[in-house]
Amino acid sequence: MGETFVVIGGDAAGMSAASKAKRENPDLDVIVFEKGEWVSYGACGMPYYVKGDIDELEDLVAITPEEFREERNIDLRTHSEVVGIDREAQTVTVENGEGTYEQEYDDLLVATGARAIEPPIDGMDLDGVFTFHSMESARDVRDTVAGESGEKPESVGIIGGGYIGLEMAEAFDARGIDVSVFEMLPHVLAPFGETIAEEVEDHLREQGVSLHLDTLVEEIGGEEDRVAAVETEDDSYPVDAVLVATGVAPNSELAEEAGIEVGETGAIATDEYGRTNDDNVFAAGDCAEAHNVVADAPDYVPLALTANRAGRAIGSTVGGDPTEVGDIVGTAVVKVFDLEVARTGITDTEEAEQAGFDPVTQVITAGSRAHYYPGDEPITIEMVGDRETGRLLGAAMVGEEGVAKRIDTVATALHAGMTVEEVQNLDLSYAPPFSPVWDPVLTAAKVLSGKLE
Amino acid sequence: MGETFVVIGGDAAGMSAASKAKRENPDLDVIVFEKGEWVSYGACGMPYYVKGDIDELEDLVAITPEEFREERNIDLRTHSEVVGIDREAQTVTVENGEGTYEQEYDDLLVATGARAIEPPIDGMDLDGVFTFHSMESARDVRDTVAGESGEKPESVGIIGGGYIGLEMAEAFDARGIDVSVFEMLPHVLAPFGETIAEEVEDHLREQGVSLHLDTLVEEIGGEEDRVAAVETEDDSYPVDAVLVATGVAPNSELAEEAGIEVGETGAIATDEYGRTNDDNVFAAGDCAEAHNVVADAPDYVPLALTANRAGRAIGSTVGGDPTEVGDIVGTAVVKVFDLEVARTGITDTEEAEQAGFDPVTQVITAGSRAHYYPGDEPITIEMVGDRETGRLLGAAMVGEEGVAKRIDTVATALHAGMTVEEVQNLDLSYAPPFSPVWDPVLTAAKVLSGKLE
Repeated sequence: MGETFVVIGGDAAGMSAASKAKRENPDLDVIVFEKGEWVSYGACGMPYYVKGDIDELEDLVAITPEEFREERNIDLRTHSEVVGIDREAQTVTVENGEGTYEQEYDDLLVATGARAIEPPIDGMDLDGVFTFHSMESARDVRDTVAGESGEKPESVGIIGGGYIGLEMAEAFDARGIDVSVFEMLPHVLAPFGETIAEEVEDHLREQGVSLHLDTLVEEIGGEEDRVAAVETEDDSYPVDAVLVATGVAPNSELAEEAGIEVGETGAIATDEYGRTNDDNVFAAGDCAEAHNVVADAPDYVPLALTANRAGRAIGSTVGGDPTEVGDIVGTAVVKVFDLEVARTGITDTEEAEQAGFDPVTQVITAGSRAHYYPGDEPITIEMVGDRETGRLLGAAMVGEEGVAKRIDTVATALHAGMTVEEVQNLDLSYAPPFSPVWDPVLTAAKVLSGKLE
Repeated sequence: MGETFVVIGGDAAGMSAASKAKRENPDLDVIVFEKGEWVSYGACGMPYYVKGDIDELEDLVAITPEEFREERNIDLRTHSEVVGIDREAQTVTVENGEGTYEQEYDDLLVATGARAIEPPIDGMDLDGVFTFHSMESARDVRDTVAGESGEKPESVGIIGGGYIGLEMAEAFDARGIDVSVFEMLPHVLAPFGETIAEEVEDHLREQGVSLHLDTLVEEIGGEEDRVAAVETEDDSYPVDAVLVATGVAPNSELAEEAGIEVGETGAIATDEYGRTNDDNVFAAGDCAEAHNVVADAPDYVPLALTANRAGRAIGSTVGGDPTEVGDIVGTAVVKVFDLEVARTGITDTEEAEQAGFDPVTQVITAGSRAHYYPGDEPITIEMVGDRETGRLLGAAMVGEEGVAKRIDTVATALHAGMTVEEVQNLDLSYAPPFSPVWDPVLTAAKVLSGKLE
């Protein structure tokens, strides 16, 4: 009898692991339990579906359930929620609408993902209030902005100025809806730092978005079960709809109840192979921690690549080829209207100090192309290094072009543990349509290096 | 009395060194001899001046002679050619049109650049035959294609399918001129390898460029002192003008005559500080070798960043702050009509073997954006690793977007000496408008890594 690999959760991490494990060891029985209907979908594309850049929600699906079942021989069970893990018996308890049953496992992957955080305020259950963390929610929002489910809203309040909040601001704006963003912190996009955030905020205002920073939403006001206003301490803002995008939290409870260790971040703690404190239980994706190589500490950065990569590595390991899940450096990029906004590593002074560094920060602006070449756009880079060792700690950048993939140079340098001086001496590509002779990353490193001496 | 730093050549390397040395040590006398009129200009922009993207030749100048003289206190002497170096006396002999004189130096930088190679064929001196390696030549060509010096040509033959040949093909085509490219090798863009070159060739043909590969030009035919045809072994191609772009050669003769050592590449040999075999004589830019960190050997890659960087480092050293010039990995990018074409490291099998590696090559095609996001364009990557050590050796890539700066990820990994597996595990940026979840570089590394196991 073959061994059984059970996967809880059928998105990026879960399906990557299932596919890879089956490919490595075709004799393995691979069972995936997914509580919803959708598997292996690109959640990051949902804002563009709402915007109208993508026609069908199905376009976001990379591989269909049928393909997993028929071509990859994976026993994929949708509408099947795992409600308990018995580590001693090595079984999971599954509810599938018709009843409950136990499934044995030899290896188990917890890939339960994350959920939208719902702030503890009144009005969350009013009609016209949306969160945005499932394909169903994306369809609801799209139907609403397209006027296909009742009257099309003329105005929307977005609570939260993070990635999803700002991507959705662009989507609503493209639909001709007035957008107001409410952010309780002094700036949007907290992980990118103040300098970069201020450029983003200027851009948002230029696009006609009303920004309310440092503003706590106290309540969502309604009229007859329908949203009517965003209520803050000082004011009331009439809106026809509200999107709540106040971040995500890891779905780690199922594992925690079974005695699986959860880290300080609240996500499931894992080792370099994605193993939890139970040798037969792995965790990956938006419910799990990863190892941040800059801070040399566990970190919770729920992003798609980390999930895919860890899932694939765990699939290899379970399939018989032990493979490390890989480190992260905290790289992220987001499109905000016409801007590309990117970050990697540690850029926050306080965070750097907590990680034991003596951070030195430098901000520069340089062109995306040769100064004489048409279409040259300014790129602002904030780069941070450690005074004592000269080591590069991180960078954030913003500009209308050439930012999204330029951050990868910095990310790669962080993986390699390079000093700022070593970054300054990188042999990067140059041609007038694509860069100044000194790439903006080199210029940032050059100036920061001078400051570190 | 202050020390004297003499620089021969007033372009990228020379002016960077002069500026940096003076800034480091304001007491230093810094004298730059430039045989022509132009200093500190962006030669890489010349094709775009011919094309018409850039209005004035002067736009390519980063810093004017007046600024060097008045703001930076550099004794810049244009129309002054150094014709001899006496290392024992520590003097150079200068001709300035009015006569000849000796100038003493304490430190000397040879930054004499490179020149266009002129093939030994008949017809090079006909009217309508151009090379393209000086600002004057760029003006001549522009005046010609704009019809400002005689009749505008209807057709042009370009001899040489390298960077300049293909950039100029785009420029001529934009001017409505029929373009034929003659390349004696089987493919254009030799340093990029066959796979990438074939995609470029398809694109050139789609743009209406006539390509003659594996074709040796034997003569440029003329009628009454004027170019009339490109003559190959098999055929005669009538043209109104010819651009000869068959590569460049280092201007190392002046140094060599003075007993300065020249490397196997024909360029001046230097150490990690840009010093030649004479402690008081440095060399940098298109006349000098650099250290290729992948091959761990001297290399001749005459490109702008290397020149600027080495010049700046030598300026620091001469100014009192010893600074290494930095390694190269052979990164290059070129725009060919709508394509971005980039390379770094060692991608040629034979070259890799000569450097002591056992190269394994993998070609993949992946999207520039998420598969569902509008504007996704295929990127082809050829990546090479060493079988024995798993080390990354190089990559070349081509596509309509997202190539020029993606190569920098690979370049940075090469500087760090990463294995292909380490590249596969890089935490690179992802958002649907900018990349698939697995960046094409990661996908290439993933597949190559499997092949290396």
